[in-house]
Amino acid sequence: MKFGGTSMAGTERIRRVANLVRRQAANGDEVAVVVSAMAGETDRLVNFCREANALYDPAEYDVVVASGEQVTAGLLALTLQSLGCKARSWLGWQLPVHTVSAHAKARIEDIENDALLESLKSGTIAVIPGFQGVSSEGRISTLGRGGSDTSAVAVAAAIDADRCDIYTDVDGVYTTDPRIVARARKQKAVTYEEMLELASVGAKVLQTRSVGLAMKEGVRVQVLSSFVDDDATPADDLPGTMIVSEEEMERILEESDMERQLVTGIAHDKNEAKVILTRVPDKPGAVAHIFEPLAEASINVDMIIQNVGRDKGETDVTFTVPQADLARAQALLDDKRDEIGFNRIITDSHISKISVVGVGMKSHAGVASTMFRALSERGINIQAISTSEIKVSVMIDEDETELAVRVLHTAYGLDAED
Amino acid sequence: MKFGGTSMAGTERIRRVANLVRRQAANGDEVAVVVSAMAGETDRLVNFCREANALYDPAEYDVVVASGEQVTAGLLALTLQSLGCKARSWLGWQLPVHTVSAHAKARIEDIENDALLESLKSGTIAVIPGFQGVSSEGRISTLGRGGSDTSAVAVAAAIDADRCDIYTDVDGVYTTDPRIVARARKQKAVTYEEMLELASVGAKVLQTRSVGLAMKEGVRVQVLSSFVDDDATPADDLPGTMIVSEEEMERILEESDMERQLVTGIAHDKNEAKVILTRVPDKPGAVAHIFEPLAEASINVDMIIQNVGRDKGETDVTFTVPQADLARAQALLDDKRDEIGFNRIITDSHISKISVVGVGMKSHAGVASTMFRALSERGINIQAISTSEIKVSVMIDEDETELAVRVLHTAYGLDAED
Repeated sequence: MKFGGTSMAGTERIRRVANLVRRQAANGDEVAVVVSAMAGETDRLVNFCREANALYDPAEYDVVVASGEQVTAGLLALTLQSLGCKARSWLGWQLPVHTVSAHAKARIEDIENDALLESLKSGTIAVIPGFQGVSSEGRISTLGRGGSDTSAVAVAAAIDADRCDIYTDVDGVYTTDPRIVARARKQKAVTYEEMLELASVGAKVLQTRSVGLAMKEGVRVQVLSSFVDDDATPADDLPGTMIVSEEEMERILEESDMERQLVTGIAHDKNEAKVILTRVPDKPGAVAHIFEPLAEASINVDMIIQNVGRDKGETDVTFTVPQADLARAQALLDDKRDEIGFNRIITDSHISKISVVGVGMKSHAGVASTMFRALSERGINIQAISTSEIKVSVMIDEDETELAVRVLHTAYGLDAED
Repeated sequence: MKFGGTSMAGTERIRRVANLVRRQAANGDEVAVVVSAMAGETDRLVNFCREANALYDPAEYDVVVASGEQVTAGLLALTLQSLGCKARSWLGWQLPVHTVSAHAKARIEDIENDALLESLKSGTIAVIPGFQGVSSEGRISTLGRGGSDTSAVAVAAAIDADRCDIYTDVDGVYTTDPRIVARARKQKAVTYEEMLELASVGAKVLQTRSVGLAMKEGVRVQVLSSFVDDDATPADDLPGTMIVSEEEMERILEESDMERQLVTGIAHDKNEAKVILTRVPDKPGAVAHIFEPLAEASINVDMIIQNVGRDKGETDVTFTVPQADLARAQALLDDKRDEIGFNRIITDSHISKISVVGVGMKSHAGVASTMFRALSERGINIQAISTSEIKVSVMIDEDETELAVRVLHTAYGLDAED
């Protein structure tokens, strides 16, 4: 079971979490719980570090910020004990959770499970702070922001858990954002690949890295809400959305007598910005001059299109970058102006990316054309297109985001019945 | 160097601390720094624990509260780095600081010094969170409130430090409370024994346990102020008060051509309460019935007097307990009323204990009589007396506290000259 910062924000909420954990343990299950820091706490600690040293040493940063999860782990163990459960906390260095590579963005290499399994077997609930581990030098390491989902999946893998239940402030994965489409449906299950694509295009239910790890380790993940009544459906009745392998997906569909949908979800992302470089020489290698410096600066370029040039031998190149990286990208390209040989940089943050995702489209043609037709019928102009095996994305004007999502939700037959 | 919670309260104050540390290191010294949590932080964490579980498990309590010093240790290391110093934090489990006995009131058994000494030798400033260690089971332990002074002395002993400088919000140990006596003088040095007596009678400059450890390990301690200007006297010029062995005290007096004072300090303590049990049977064993249950409940009884009884075969017994324990003491004694056989319990919190302390009185008679005469000349009534080898304490009416302290400060020739 994994609980995020909103669920851990204060002792009263921690008591609600403890009740959910107790109910699961009372079911006869051995339970390990991974917790985040109280909402706002990590920001507070990060700010302290910035104030102390703008160019902070990540090893000491880790010492400071890892304390947030240490506190909530201790408090949840105490609260569980007050409810009559056997419980203890296991800090990253105590299990230990071995990590590799850089501080502040470490990667879990291995979690020792002997002591943990023994403790679980004795009926003791294990409470484990997410986000933290210990480096090969014996120092505290952290996984980078949002790393607690990854911790939870790694712990689940280490103890060969039946399931990794990730409690969030939504009650599952929907066909699209329910704030935009009232008829959006909660899904019974989605595959790892679909979840990866949905996460990468802005449906931020789970941290992308955690989904990748779950896929690699074959951990069955359930996304469900921590804001439920005490007498709600227990987690074993799978009230949330399961994230599973394609094989299990087939089984689930068969068992529940459901048909596989062509498209599982429709995601939108308003955090991209468009960059146009005008009059780039239309010759081999020109595009490399543009994208190599961006890649080196870890700026993630998504959609790329080469417009037909106005003049012979020249072309306009359009692509998208995260809005947060736009200023940095612009500065980098300005530096390389001579090398690249463009005329002007035009930027536009007023765009949106709409993606339709579904494993089903692997074996079905026509998914993209349904999309293009549905959008054009409503007069929505497509500025760029990118595709993967299980995803089609288009760039449109930001003002048309909600309209596009609704149109597509209906076009792919995803609207819930009355 | 050790800094308390007031000195560590916020990144701006931590920067002041870092400047003091940098100045010491720039002197060519190898420096280890022990830090407390930010002022108020430990209270915040303790409250969380109480809210989570009124009868909290001390092992999990330790996990939660130890985080306060972890944060300040990381932040001071970061701040030192920002000033161009080499610095790193060493958490209790990293050195490790081995502790024994109960969680939440552990005792330091041993501090491993190999890695620490090597790091210090390489010119890296060590920043060590006070108050914390690791138990023999590999779990976080804490030393009890105020334990950071003890951590500092233990670290100083472990690395055989030349000196343990404890920075506080006062600039040394005075002949008495300067808020009461304007002519109180800061002392150049006091002995461990004097400091122990002064601490135990209410002059709370250092945690008593830390002074005991310093005496046992022969650590030279300096008490000095952390609120000094950057260009103030460096700590090596001993601007504070040294707490040392009697031998070193002799040396210091000789070198500075000073005479040993009969009385080093005058302390007052308003936190005691008086208890009178009337008409206790005046026979062997009666007193044991009174004090045994109090001792078992860890209630510290200080002064004891047996008044002459009104009736034959009966006596009144008067003693003092800490005010905080008064209600508990009263309930305990009420329970044992039949066994003890007293008539009434009379309590009085409106009392004060005044103590004169000095190693010099070991070899000089007349210290006590000077005290009694000086107080009686001013009409101050002495309700009880207790003495040790280097201390005389009297119990008086609380309203006369300040008067008594001033009278005695003058009587023992402690007033500073104009």
